[in-house]
Order: sequence, then structure tokens, then C-alpha cells
Amino acid sequence: MRIAEPTVERLVQYHRLLEQLSSEGRKVVSSQEIGQMLSLKASQVRKDLSYFGEIGKRGVGYHVDRLFEHISGILASPKKWPIALVGVGRLGEALLGHRAFRSEKFDIQALFDVDPEKVGTNVMGIPCFHMDTAAEEIRRLGIQVIILTAPSSVAQLCVDTLTAAGGIRGILNFSPVSIVTPPDVLVYSVDISVELEKLLFYLKGREE
Amino acid sequence: MRIAEPTVERLVQYHRLLEQLSSEGRKVVSSQEIGQMLSLKASQVRKDLSYFGEIGKRGVGYHVDRLFEHISGILASPKKWPIALVGVGRLGEALLGHRAFRSEKFDIQALFDVDPEKVGTNVMGIPCFHMDTAAEEIRRLGIQVIILTAPSSVAQLCVDTLTAAGGIRGILNFSPVSIVTPPDVLVYSVDISVELEKLLFYLKGREE
Repeated sequence: MRIAEPTVERLVQYHRLLEQLSSEGRKVVSSQEIGQMLSLKASQVRKDLSYFGEIGKRGVGYHVDRLFEHISGILASPKKWPIALVGVGRLGEALLGHRAFRSEKFDIQALFDVDPEKVGTNVMGIPCFHMDTAAEEIRRLGIQVIILTAPSSVAQLCVDTLTAAGGIRGILNFSPVSIVTPPDVLVYSVDISVELEKLLFYLKGREE
Repeated sequence: MRIAEPTVERLVQYHRLLEQLSSEGRKVVSSQEIGQMLSLKASQVRKDLSYFGEIGKRGVGYHVDRLFEHISGILASPKKWPIALVGVGRLGEALLGHRAFRSEKFDIQALFDVDPEKVGTNVMGIPCFHMDTAAEEIRRLGIQVIILTAPSSVAQLCVDTLTAAGGIRGILNFSPVSIVTPPDVLVYSVDISVELEKLLFYLKGREE
């Protein structure tokens, strides 16, 4: 099933919200409530969920747990992707400590850095290797996904080294620069300051 | 001028890319090149830029510096928004240390936390106050925008305290929970693990 990117994004948001509601003991939720909590139109929520075969009951809504399981199934990966995080600075450590990144779904097996204080140690339980040995460790561990939190100045160099090792399928790039990869490597860039710029841009619009 | 949200996102991306190209001494860039570097169709790039009055020259492309200035004007805020960051943990510190957040455009004036090791000190040059005094400091400093990096468990409590102070116009939420605000407060949520889920979801699709 091919799903458009904004839909995937909303799907992941529904999933996260339903998990939260479930943990709070909620049994049902309406499309209006979901929409309000995620800043979406209720009609968009209904459209998305009916596309995936879930129809809310008029005046009742959706069963939280059933909808959660249903979306889990769609998002579920048939396997755990072996992941490495490259660049164990403040952002890298923040991600490693982030609840969501320590989920069972993600399997961060190795860290790479050049800092002698970090190389050879375990950071939050994960072994840190020197970038010089990245290619061989990637092959040894079968790493397929990279979380890139290296400084901008060396981001492309890291990517070149890592992809040259072979086997890398995707890169989640947190460095605020564009990176170039071989065509078979999928790149997702997350520029965390973009969101602040967007917020300020909308506030400006409200002010005018 | 009202601009749809995905367009704003691309506009910010063009802006960032052009800044990078300019710093590398590039004079011109084609819509194909921009598209390739940002994973967009060249036709989308041309459509976006022509909407903002910039027409590339056939076989030449766009003037990097001129286009950069043009987009800067559209994105520019007539004022600096006074910003506070709430929750000086690993993620908060990572954001404070992030090049993009130390830009002249952003004016992070205060930090709030409850950790006695941080309260009363300066973290990366910015004074950290106790959450108990947040309302009065927000009023004193005229804070209008909040970057929320507090733990999930206290995110809503922080938001309630902060918005009760009055004057808050927007919140950039990094906590992986939904937060509820008064209707006049604009919320943007950034869930950094969503991007990893999306990447893995697409890799799954390629695998099948």
C-alpha cells in the first residue's frame, strides 16, 4: 500500500496520541477530539481513518485500543532495523535519552564519534566506536539505518564514509545542511530550527 | 499574504539551502539542482518560486544571492520575538547549542527549570530561573514565545503555568505529548521520533 507522506505523518501522530489516551485509561475518542488535540480538522481525521478501514460510530467515536492496534499493524515493521547513531554530541545524547528513541521498535546498536573520551566506552549502554572503523563495524553489525547528528562541517564526509561501507538503506539527518547520497539510500532531514521559524512566521501573519 | 503550511516549510528549506550555497560562493542554481538537494520535483520548485515572483532564467537558473534576499524578505519578522526555553535537560541544551537557534533572528532571553544546579546560573549565557517564578519573569521580560523541552510528565503543567501568566503567543513543543492551550496560543509540536518512524515506514515499503 502506497500512502502519501503527509498521511504517514498524521498516521504516526494518531498512533502516538492513541497510545497516550490508552495509557490514561480512555476507552473511546471522537474525530473532533482527535482533531482538536492534533490541530487537524475532524473531517480530515475521519477521512484518514476510514481510508484505513476504521469507521467511528456516530455520537460515540472510535475505540481507543482497537484503533491503536489497527494503526500499529499498518506501521509495524516486519523486522527491527539495525541502527547506528553518528555524532555523540549534545543532540546525539538528547536523542539517545529520548523516551521515543529507546522504544522496542528501534534497535540502536552502535555509536560513532571521534572524541577519545567517548570512543571505546558505552554511552547509555550502547558501544561507541571511532569513525575510522565505521565501515568495518557497519558491515560487521549489518547496520542499515543511520541517525546523523554530526556537526554540519563533517556531515557530508560522514555520509560518504558510511554509505561507502555498503548496506546503508536510510539516513535520518539532523545536521542543518543538505547531504548527497547514492540513489538507493533514502534520506530524511529534520531541521529542528525550521519549526521555530515556521511558528514565528505564523505569529507574524496573525500580528499583521 | 496567506501561504499554505507545506509551502512555508519549503520556503524555509529554500532559504536555508540558498544560505549554504551562498556561503560556498555559488552564484547561480537551477530548479533541478534545488530539487535534487531537497528531494523535491524541479517543477514544484519552479512553481513555488514563481508564486513569489522569482522566475529562473532558462538554461541558467536563479541568482543565489538575489533569491536568498527575496525569500529573507518574505520570512523576515518585523520584530524579534522574546523567547524562553522551558526545561534545560539534554534536549534543551542541545537546542541552545544548535547553531540555528543562536541566530540573530531568535532572542532567547530566559530559561526555566527546577534543578537547583541550574536555577540562578547562566546556561550558555542565558539566565535560568525557577519555574515557580516563571509567571512573573514572563511578564517582566515580555516573553511571547516558549520553546518547551520539559519532560512529558510535566509538559501540560508547565504550559498551564506559562499561559496563565498572559502574553504568551506561541509554543514550540518538543515534548512527545499533546498539550492543550487557550485558543489564542499557537502550538507547533515537533516530535523528533516521528521522523525516524516515517523513515522506517518508507524503508519497509521499499522492502516489500
